[in-house]
Amino acid sequence: MDRVFNFSAGPSTLPLPVLEEARDDLLNYKGCGMSVMEMSHRSQDYQNIIDTAEADLRDLMKIPDNYSVLFLQGGGTLQFSMVPLNLLRNTGKADYIVTGTWAKKAYTEATKFGDIRVAASSEQDGFTWVPKLGAADFRSDADYVYITTNNTIYGTRYNYIPDTGGILLAADQSSNFLAEEYNVGDFGLIYAGAQKNVGPAGVTIVIIRRDLLGHAPENTPVYLDYKIHADKGSMYNTPPCFSIYIAGLTFQWIKKQGGVRAIQQHNLEQATKLYTVIDNSSLFNAPVQAEDRSHMNVVFTTGNDELNAKFVAEAKEKGLVNLKGHRSVGGMRASLYNAMPDEGVDALISFMKDFELANR
Amino acid sequence: MDRVFNFSAGPSTLPLPVLEEARDDLLNYKGCGMSVMEMSHRSQDYQNIIDTAEADLRDLMKIPDNYSVLFLQGGGTLQFSMVPLNLLRNTGKADYIVTGTWAKKAYTEATKFGDIRVAASSEQDGFTWVPKLGAADFRSDADYVYITTNNTIYGTRYNYIPDTGGILLAADQSSNFLAEEYNVGDFGLIYAGAQKNVGPAGVTIVIIRRDLLGHAPENTPVYLDYKIHADKGSMYNTPPCFSIYIAGLTFQWIKKQGGVRAIQQHNLEQATKLYTVIDNSSLFNAPVQAEDRSHMNVVFTTGNDELNAKFVAEAKEKGLVNLKGHRSVGGMRASLYNAMPDEGVDALISFMKDFELANR
Repeated sequence: MDRVFNFSAGPSTLPLPVLEEARDDLLNYKGCGMSVMEMSHRSQDYQNIIDTAEADLRDLMKIPDNYSVLFLQGGGTLQFSMVPLNLLRNTGKADYIVTGTWAKKAYTEATKFGDIRVAASSEQDGFTWVPKLGAADFRSDADYVYITTNNTIYGTRYNYIPDTGGILLAADQSSNFLAEEYNVGDFGLIYAGAQKNVGPAGVTIVIIRRDLLGHAPENTPVYLDYKIHADKGSMYNTPPCFSIYIAGLTFQWIKKQGGVRAIQQHNLEQATKLYTVIDNSSLFNAPVQAEDRSHMNVVFTTGNDELNAKFVAEAKEKGLVNLKGHRSVGGMRASLYNAMPDEGVDALISFMKDFELANR
Repeated sequence: MDRVFNFSAGPSTLPLPVLEEARDDLLNYKGCGMSVMEMSHRSQDYQNIIDTAEADLRDLMKIPDNYSVLFLQGGGTLQFSMVPLNLLRNTGKADYIVTGTWAKKAYTEATKFGDIRVAASSEQDGFTWVPKLGAADFRSDADYVYITTNNTIYGTRYNYIPDTGGILLAADQSSNFLAEEYNVGDFGLIYAGAQKNVGPAGVTIVIIRRDLLGHAPENTPVYLDYKIHADKGSMYNTPPCFSIYIAGLTFQWIKKQGGVRAIQQHNLEQATKLYTVIDNSSLFNAPVQAEDRSHMNVVFTTGNDELNAKFVAEAKEKGLVNLKGHRSVGGMRASLYNAMPDEGVDALISFMKDFELANR
């Protein structure tokens, strides 16, 4: 089979030019005589790779100088622990907005380490919308407020940045990192697993304001202290070198696409095209409240489990794969991360129209 | 430049057939239409990859059924915390044998979590030998004894397995994993970072006896509880998929070489050849006590910093790279991991002889 259109929620499709470059250099990176996978992380060749990746990311996100950029392991799950361990630095209180499975897991994990409160949750409505909160909704002495800017499973996004009244804001941007423009200065900490918009699973990017480093309790497991990594340029221990390399190639690809603003515009066009088809369909519908719809993860359904399964199976035969919704939601989900080509969205839309004609 | 002979201590050289297969399948893994990097970890294709990797590893190491095999992130550094957090399950005491930098770091980290004692150390002699201990040397009520079977920086190895008098033995095998035969049943836990003998940095393999699962304290960060990972087949969260895939290819390559016993024999031949040249040289010498010499990391020196630097520089020009010793030891270090071809060792020996003639 030729390359398919891969609508997986993550790990997911990567830009073809990134994969081609990685393939061409796989046995011998730019004539240095070895694969990036074989390179000492202490070598100048590898230092150049990670330095370039960081510089390109800083450029793409306009990251201020008083923020550190870290390339870590352990995924979002390790961040669920690291965020409270490092940010509960004064009162030990934090307020979480629970907008999906991952936000809830982050909240539950944080309760091990402090006085954690759910500021709001949309769970009672199946996480089909995002609460709109302002400064009055948070404890004024909280050490931080925690949000998940895009909810992969339920297909929602924040269409606003909460005014926390000056409380530090921490954000899981795993599924819309580099897919939407943010002002980094609005956050004390941003993190993202790479396996949606950036690269292979196995590297998590953390952007943290430097004054927040150094507050982890003394008995914190060493790997879980951001300061350790910041002080050593993500080289306290051997980093996930190859995954960082691929992320770096993706950063360069995003620059070639015109940067984050251009990518965001493109993502919005793709998502709008797909939501419009769903909204105009008599077979498909989207459960998410219109104003909170994700540009990354488009959730839809026929309302009939059997028909949904048929849709997913027939789509797969046409090279449109991983359209099955998350088990906790059912139905379908088309993830349109940065690397999804227009041809993929167009092919999906064309198939949806054919399927509707054949099954109404 | 063509591919070099890479004597790096890690990340290091990988088998050429592994890299070639990864390259050939990089855009489209076995006709499934996508790269392994793009695959959902919940897909059947990926499940097959990780299941095959685990089965091959179990086969290679004859891992008994009452042991779990985990593919984790965070490197040895995260294991320095996870081992005590999970294994200090009764008295909170553990005895560490300190045979190098990594053993010492593991010890220091463990002191955060319990009553940790150095059972023996060879630090006063620059870690040039490995203490020989028996049951009487350990606290009889210790929860575990900790060893580092091969010491990457100093070039030593355990030529015996300590009799602990029945106390659980935990081993960091990062730099001789799958390079020497061990009886897994002698250990309660074995772990190894992949980036020496197995694959790219970013995956750490843990082999743990199942009765040791489930003893982490309640407030342990979720990712640091082995049981979480064991219960979910290393899929509690997104694993480092591509690194596991490469590790799996390496397992298959080791099988083709005849398994671990054949690999060990081959490694011993390579190391012996190199140590013999050093011992017969009037220019080079090896600081490590003969009986404790590593088969993986051959440390040697001319005794003259300037001459050492010249050696490293001239070797590099001949495509023999990363021969500089660790900064804490100086001199030279040739790491001969499983994937080092005989041609590499022969080329090094030939160059050493030429260098000696030119510089004596």
